[in-house]
Amino acid sequence: MKIIILTLFKEMYDSFLSSSIIARAISKKLVEIKLVNFRDYTKDKYHRVDTPPTGGGAGLILKCQPIYDALINNSSSKTHKIVLTPRGKTFNQEKAIELSKLDEILILCGHYEGIDERLYKYFDEEISIGDFILTGGETASFCLIDAITRLIPGVISDESTSLESFDNNLLEYPQYTEPYEFNGDKIPDLLYSGNHKEIEKYHQYQRLIQTKKYRPDLFAKYKLTKGDIKLFKEKEENNITKSEKDAMKKASKFMKNN
Amino acid sequence: MKIIILTLFKEMYDSFLSSSIIARAISKKLVEIKLVNFRDYTKDKYHRVDTPPTGGGAGLILKCQPIYDALINNSSSKTHKIVLTPRGKTFNQEKAIELSKLDEILILCGHYEGIDERLYKYFDEEISIGDFILTGGETASFCLIDAITRLIPGVISDESTSLESFDNNLLEYPQYTEPYEFNGDKIPDLLYSGNHKEIEKYHQYQRLIQTKKYRPDLFAKYKLTKGDIKLFKEKEENNITKSEKDAMKKASKFMKNN
Repeated sequence: MKIIILTLFKEMYDSFLSSSIIARAISKKLVEIKLVNFRDYTKDKYHRVDTPPTGGGAGLILKCQPIYDALINNSSSKTHKIVLTPRGKTFNQEKAIELSKLDEILILCGHYEGIDERLYKYFDEEISIGDFILTGGETASFCLIDAITRLIPGVISDESTSLESFDNNLLEYPQYTEPYEFNGDKIPDLLYSGNHKEIEKYHQYQRLIQTKKYRPDLFAKYKLTKGDIKLFKEKEENNITKSEKDAMKKASKFMKNN
Repeated sequence: MKIIILTLFKEMYDSFLSSSIIARAISKKLVEIKLVNFRDYTKDKYHRVDTPPTGGGAGLILKCQPIYDALINNSSSKTHKIVLTPRGKTFNQEKAIELSKLDEILILCGHYEGIDERLYKYFDEEISIGDFILTGGETASFCLIDAITRLIPGVISDESTSLESFDNNLLEYPQYTEPYEFNGDKIPDLLYSGNHKEIEKYHQYQRLIQTKKYRPDLFAKYKLTKGDIKLFKEKEENNITKSEKDAMKKASKFMKNN
């Protein structure tokens, strides 16, 4: 995959691109990153890329010409062109999977107060990293590149991406490492039983319970399976805690209403 | 403000901390960043920080001891301790504002498949950057640091943060820059009128319309004012388009139901 970044701050990418998984993906030739400073495309004699907004308002807005020229000179019809903007669709794992399958993407990182409205129509997609304000799109682009790159086959082991948070709208189950006891907290004994079937059931039950607790919004999107309902029932029979019982009741009620 | 980062990849921060607004905030002594590699705290003779999960499963999990020791050796009771994790509360502008008012925060950037469950209780808050998977918390921490730092008084001009996207659950209005015409698209004539009152009304109307179009979820959270309703009505009288009329009807209906 080729990723083209239009930015005013190419130097911000140095450490990111030479670290960790991205560096590995680049050296394996699974990903190619092209950094383009759109200031290089200004036709203005002062090389200005920004100016105050017409009609008044705070700050500086990025002008049409430099970004437009950088865009058409660094993309083709096969390039999927993305502009990072607060008004875009919120980035999520589904979008990361979709983008990881493309051959070439371009990401425009805005800066200052935003870009001229007339530029948006030259992009295929508007993406927001979340409901917060950044000084520029660069840090958001790091997240996009990281999330997308790790999904490209060969970058990390397939096993690692086979079950993780947000798959099926569930969070991951709690994980533990040796030693058995840390500051008085013990690893659940079941995990030492060697009974893989029971461990698997326990993990699925934990995914359900944790998602319900921490992300009720995601849990509402998840469709409980017959196996999940059975898990809840078994827990009840085995003298479960009150909070687990409550979760089960709510889950059953949710099933009835959906 | 002091920001302490616990990470395995300190080198990833080099370019980010020496660029743009963060570098300026550091040189103005408005922000102090302390990078801590928690591998330095291992008591294991091989300096291992990770191990396969007890009970089986893919990948490697970060162990308790190194992170715990790094945490207690680099924080005090006044430190607000944050762990970045997919199960955390989704970061947003409200949270950025809240965190920007604190004196000292610590951010743990996990990596690999996650951290030992028993570590969470030592943190004050669990934050997620969004519903997507990263190889580590580092890129997410860049976004947090950027979003928080720019809100610290003195880092950027107050004007720039006075009206922006997500304030009051509305997006920003479209902005334009000279020249008047670009590739056939013109700047709305009103912006040249010098009639500041009318321009202000136009901008507010655009914020409403744009938020409705791009982020209906945010628009649903916004409480329309009497002035907003009046704006919609005026537009109707001035021969507005069908889509604008529809938006107005929906907005009025929304008002009645809320």
